[in-house]
Amino acid sequence: MVNQDTPELGVGLVGYAFMGATHSHAWRTAPRFFDLPLRPRLAALAGRDRTAVRAAAERMGWAAVETDWRALIARDDVQLVDICTPGDTHAEIALAALEAGKHVLCEKPLANSVAEAEAMAAAAEKARERGLRAMVGFSYRRVPAVALARQMVAEGRLGTIRHVRAVYLQDWITDPEFPLTWRLRKERAGSGALGDIGAHIVDLTQFVTGQLITGVSGLTETFVRERPLPQAAAGLSATGGEERGEVTVDDAALFFGRLSGGALASFEATRFASGRKNAMRIEINGSLGSLAFDFESMNELLFHDETLPAREAGFRRILATEPTHPYAGAWWPPGHGLGYDHTFVHQAKDLVEAIAEERDAEPTFADGLRVQRVLAAVEASAADRSVWTPVPGA
Amino acid sequence: MVNQDTPELGVGLVGYAFMGATHSHAWRTAPRFFDLPLRPRLAALAGRDRTAVRAAAERMGWAAVETDWRALIARDDVQLVDICTPGDTHAEIALAALEAGKHVLCEKPLANSVAEAEAMAAAAEKARERGLRAMVGFSYRRVPAVALARQMVAEGRLGTIRHVRAVYLQDWITDPEFPLTWRLRKERAGSGALGDIGAHIVDLTQFVTGQLITGVSGLTETFVRERPLPQAAAGLSATGGEERGEVTVDDAALFFGRLSGGALASFEATRFASGRKNAMRIEINGSLGSLAFDFESMNELLFHDETLPAREAGFRRILATEPTHPYAGAWWPPGHGLGYDHTFVHQAKDLVEAIAEERDAEPTFADGLRVQRVLAAVEASAADRSVWTPVPGA
Amino acid sequence: MVNQDTPELGVGLVGYAFMGATHSHAWRTAPRFFDLPLRPRLAALAGRDRTAVRAAAERMGWAAVETDWRALIARDDVQLVDICTPGDTHAEIALAALEAGKHVLCEKPLANSVAEAEAMAAAAEKARERGLRAMVGFSYRRVPAVALARQMVAEGRLGTIRHVRAVYLQDWITDPEFPLTWRLRKERAGSGALGDIGAHIVDLTQFVTGQLITGVSGLTETFVRERPLPQAAAGLSATGGEERGEVTVDDAALFFGRLSGGALASFEATRFASGRKNAMRIEINGSLGSLAFDFESMNELLFHDETLPAREAGFRRILATEPTHPYAGAWWPPGHGLGYDHTFVHQAKDLVEAIAEERDAEPTFADGLRVQRVLAAVEASAADRSVWTPVPGA
Amino acid sequence: MVNQDTPELGVGLVGYAFMGATHSHAWRTAPRFFDLPLRPRLAALAGRDRTAVRAAAERMGWAAVETDWRALIARDDVQLVDICTPGDTHAEIALAALEAGKHVLCEKPLANSVAEAEAMAAAAEKARERGLRAMVGFSYRRVPAVALARQMVAEGRLGTIRHVRAVYLQDWITDPEFPLTWRLRKERAGSGALGDIGAHIVDLTQFVTGQLITGVSGLTETFVRERPLPQAAAGLSATGGEERGEVTVDDAALFFGRLSGGALASFEATRFASGRKNAMRIEINGSLGSLAFDFESMNELLFHDETLPAREAGFRRILATEPTHPYAGAWWPPGHGLGYDHTFVHQAKDLVEAIAEERDAEPTFADGLRVQRVLAAVEASAADRSVWTPVPGA
Repeated sequence: MVNQDTPELGVGLVGYAFMGATHSHAWRTAPRFFDLPLRPRLAALAGRDRTAVRAAAERMGWAAVETDWRALIARDDVQLVDICTPGDTHAEIALAALEAGKHVLCEKPLANSVAEAEAMAAAAEKARERGLRAMVGFSYRRVPAVALARQMVAEGRLGTIRHVRAVYLQDWITDPEFPLTWRLRKERAGSGALGDIGAHIVDLTQFVTGQLITGVSGLTETFVRERPLPQAAAGLSATGGEERGEVTVDDAALFFGRLSGGALASFEATRFASGRKNAMRIEINGSLGSLAFDFESMNELLFHDETLPAREAGFRRILATEPTHPYAGAWWPPGHGLGYDHTFVHQAKDLVEAIAEERDAEPTFADGLRVQRVLAAVEASAADRSVWTPVPGA
Repeated sequence: MVNQDTPELGVGLVGYAFMGATHSHAWRTAPRFFDLPLRPRLAALAGRDRTAVRAAAERMGWAAVETDWRALIARDDVQLVDICTPGDTHAEIALAALEAGKHVLCEKPLANSVAEAEAMAAAAEKARERGLRAMVGFSYRRVPAVALARQMVAEGRLGTIRHVRAVYLQDWITDPEFPLTWRLRKERAGSGALGDIGAHIVDLTQFVTGQLITGVSGLTETFVRERPLPQAAAGLSATGGEERGEVTVDDAALFFGRLSGGALASFEATRFASGRKNAMRIEINGSLGSLAFDFESMNELLFHDETLPAREAGFRRILATEPTHPYAGAWWPPGHGLGYDHTFVHQAKDLVEAIAEERDAEPTFADGLRVQRVLAAVEASAADRSVWTPVPGA
Repeated sequence: MVNQDTPELGVGLVGYAFMGATHSHAWRTAPRFFDLPLRPRLAALAGRDRTAVRAAAERMGWAAVETDWRALIARDDVQLVDICTPGDTHAEIALAALEAGKHVLCEKPLANSVAEAEAMAAAAEKARERGLRAMVGFSYRRVPAVALARQMVAEGRLGTIRHVRAVYLQDWITDPEFPLTWRLRKERAGSGALGDIGAHIVDLTQFVTGQLITGVSGLTETFVRERPLPQAAAGLSATGGEERGEVTVDDAALFFGRLSGGALASFEATRFASGRKNAMRIEINGSLGSLAFDFESMNELLFHDETLPAREAGFRRILATEPTHPYAGAWWPPGHGLGYDHTFVHQAKDLVEAIAEERDAEPTFADGLRVQRVLAAVEASAADRSVWTPVPGA
Repeated sequence: MVNQDTPELGVGLVGYAFMGATHSHAWRTAPRFFDLPLRPRLAALAGRDRTAVRAAAERMGWAAVETDWRALIARDDVQLVDICTPGDTHAEIALAALEAGKHVLCEKPLANSVAEAEAMAAAAEKARERGLRAMVGFSYRRVPAVALARQMVAEGRLGTIRHVRAVYLQDWITDPEFPLTWRLRKERAGSGALGDIGAHIVDLTQFVTGQLITGVSGLTETFVRERPLPQAAAGLSATGGEERGEVTVDDAALFFGRLSGGALASFEATRFASGRKNAMRIEINGSLGSLAFDFESMNELLFHDETLPAREAGFRRILATEPTHPYAGAWWPPGHGLGYDHTFVHQAKDLVEAIAEERDAEPTFADGLRVQRVLAAVEASAADRSVWTPVPGA
């Protein structure tokens, strides 16, 4: 665990909204529960509004503040730049950080366009030669139940995979009076449900199966095309005024595709599934078994073992809190569940270890690019009568 | 209930395998629990093998047998012809029965092609003028929880519908050694998972939402392309020999579409979902609420009421066994569930009532044709790079 | 299945309310799905009101009627007397039937007192020497999932049993205006929740574990002590008038006990569990595994296999609809559930087979007596400060 | 949130095993997410082994260490003493801390005997006059779903409460080779499952219902009476040697009781429920509704609203992650669940607020004493043929 002799790893964070809070918690907490080879130090927090960033830094435990992310990158006491800003700024910050010789952790989606993502992946590949790590923040990979699922697939417990069905269902904008926040504007967010939550289920599918999505057919929709402009820069719960603006991203996206191993996969990302709060679900059916996961019950993994006699087979609910489960041994006794924030602690731990051990920190920017290409193919297909669209490089 | 003064309705059944058994049970049982205006009489059973059909008739309670379905139709004591044969014979038998002035109940899918279905719907329309009823056997409409779902949608409890996601998951042919039974041969079954179980979720979607699917994009796959030929004409559990033949239908079909009211809908039908035995599921999200159903828990309907305060909202599990639920009042006290066969009893009841009351027996052949057109559009799309394919007439 | 050469078994039924309807359905249906050695014939139905019993007989399919159960017992065409009346009449009818040389099926609870039950068990034991069968109607033993549970326990899959927790939760009298029907009057029903539904979980526990309850500590309560008198002899849904009467049975009963094999067991029977409609639940924990069942999801059995590595262990949901599951092979394909009434069909089948094969029809009257003794011990304990009370003969 | 101008609250922690780790996490984390009136400072950690306590202090973030808890209490920079040691030391430490003018947080159960608990409650009452707070650590009260349940009961949503059924099921000692750790020795732990986890469900029942348990009938059992002595002082996963010792506490306890408002309540605490890892469950049935909770799904509360029409009523799954739910607003968006450790963060927050606002910190030592008296009554009943035993003071 933390030891004063352990070398420090200075972290600089850009952005301090919802995601900034989760990352701060992770940097503070990871060394308390995991025996890390480097001791994360919350060196500096960057944000444009000095008063606000100072308050955030104090609240979240950062030693210093910067009002320009460039200054943060330039600091000697920062070896790792953690990017928690909206997607339109990811490329610029990440490229500058890598250029400056810093490790990078970048929130998902990697970028708002394939071109940006390609530039980032290329820069990461070059930086890799200089010993730099570049990781994209698909934190759901670090849910113990999800990591267990990947292990079981990798061990062959599912046999030949036939089907994946993945959905990410939310309902926070079903009310047409919900305001036009930045997540509903293409110039900031890149896309809507597709890039925000669809990105997660694309990565999850490729992560758990170990296969790539090779082609897709897609459909997107914006159900509510005008919304009140927000009255103040605010979070998810902002309220709107009387003036209205155009929603320029999708409310929902449906697509299906094929995996490199021959399976069929279906996907849905929506913010209009009334009653579903954060239902990121995946089910995988293989010749020897099946797995199912729902983030709303994040400590559970369902597993069906097809090799058992039919008389006693069925989906079993594995509570992923055993010492033998990924990450779980560092926490509480069996049956004492983890929460959303623990995934970020695990992410911090894995990144610190990768840096110390000089190996790739997965998901790499290349993994992020692979997701981006799938999303772009979905958009291209949706724009052209849902026609089958191959994913380049897959 | 049954009363000796109630006029009889002579039923003639063609086919006596799995479906024939469920229909026979329904004809025997409906008048015991529902107060029917006509008394069904199990007049005659038709099948090609005289010995087998005689044994079946005795076991299932039929008064007479025929070895030619034409003879069955010609019988004076048969007013209703019930067709439980594979799909390739539906059109011919149904057309002949209607021509002969008989009411018809035809198992789903209505036919193996749109052309046949169109001919059947046209014949039914003409026969209607002569007071004849023609119903297609989408029996899942008669699950109390499903009928309740339709009522709630019709009452506006879901508001504007945004999403439908429907799957029908089975796993009975995951074993590559499962033999090439008639359901896996295009010339008998028309299609595979698509027509057999995909048909159900298409009808279910159109029934519960009261909307039509207007266009689709589809993908189909046959995972196991060769299978052992069956050693004997047998049911689902037949075993295969050494000789192998080609599987000429799909093992799985994925498609998405739009509904006439603007919703997005996704569909999957597969026989390769290990561990899912008969998971016909549908979830509907609307602006005011959501509904979810899974046939594996057929006595439950999940309902989320979006109009409640978020503090106390959530999917509630309605046990569809209350006297106020469709059909349920005729059976047992609350909490005493029904089974698969009850849906056929309800179907028989509804058909008898429609005949007596001289009104359409839904789902009509026109409804069956609507399903057939969706399936054909899926196949057309799947054959042409999943390109968006409008559904004619929708 | 039914065959005209199969010898008949003439059945005479006493009582034609809710239970009479389920039994009638069972006698009609069993020979349609099971290959029975005797062909049940619905010979005669007995009830006091000639008009009502005639209507019931026609509706339920009985060939003749009697207005005196003694006359029914005396009929030459009745070999089996099926008793579906309230508990206060069981002993007299059953004793007369056995005396007259008839087989007997008697609804549970076997009797309203231990003394009556002892007389019945003794008469059954004597009649057994004359080749007569006497069975008590604990029909839940014939739920496929329950029968599977018993098999698994008998096979040793649970190891040493440590715990049983069984509840039977209903809510049909939570409304204080629900009328004072016969089930709420001690002189007819014997007891309330305890005898009506508590009897089921006592039998279920002894059946599934294969062990006896050796002693108990109990508590009973009547929450609503006065209710409106019913305006008409009616079923569960009767409405009450203005006059009120005293409730003379328990609304709820709690007890715990020890099993002959050393396990602890807890029990609760109540009609005041708002929202629980027919939640007869049992969970059994053993050194090698656990089982759980809830009748509201009657086609499911949960099984935890403690011998698996903890990493992949968890309660699995076995859908008890496989051909290898008890009774299920006679019905529908996997995943097509059964309902409440199927348990009575299975009961009829098992009884007919026992008669034909000249072996005991379980649960025997002795089994019914064992349940009665447990209930009496609970009442004795509840009446004496919940003091531990041994169950005689266990 | 944390502000350098906020006055500090110096915390001293005694004990650094499993519970010490959760408390440390709570003290570190509470001010990061809640706007506390006092800033907790992790002043000093006490433990007997200097090397071990130093390592723990560094890992957990404590500024100093003491090897004698008396020295910790004596420190000027400690205003609050947090007691995370086994139950046999609670009384001595708590009494000394209160005597020394320190606030106290004491892990449950409050003490190993009623006499100790009475002394502690008396001391707390006296200390209260000096402005000191004494809280017992029934942290499950701070699960958002549990706090919501209490709110709903208090608002009258359940009407008159009829039933409580509460169980706490674990399985960590089903293996007879699990060693004889301190939790299995009466002199350290006071009792077994009863005091360790039974205490939780007693407190939970009294907390959520707002009523007291007035009398009980109980039964306890030790299934495995000898176990290997542990080879090293270790946690839950210790392994045993060849020498064996006697288990002097209960493995399981069953009891039922009455609440002050007239409800019946049943309880079970066991460490032998194979497959149940931490299933602390409670269901409450009232005349207007029901609630159900299971800690294994700690972010969910089930609610049945009996006032809805039966046609649409059923248990709904409230995901207790809405901003309007207790504590949840400080964390993540809806659907992003919390874990076990968050309950301790909430406990720390509530205690700090109570101290600053000079009001009782519930659950008080008096609440802890009330639990202890129930446990003692259970033990007394279990020792005397389960005879009904009133709970003094209730």
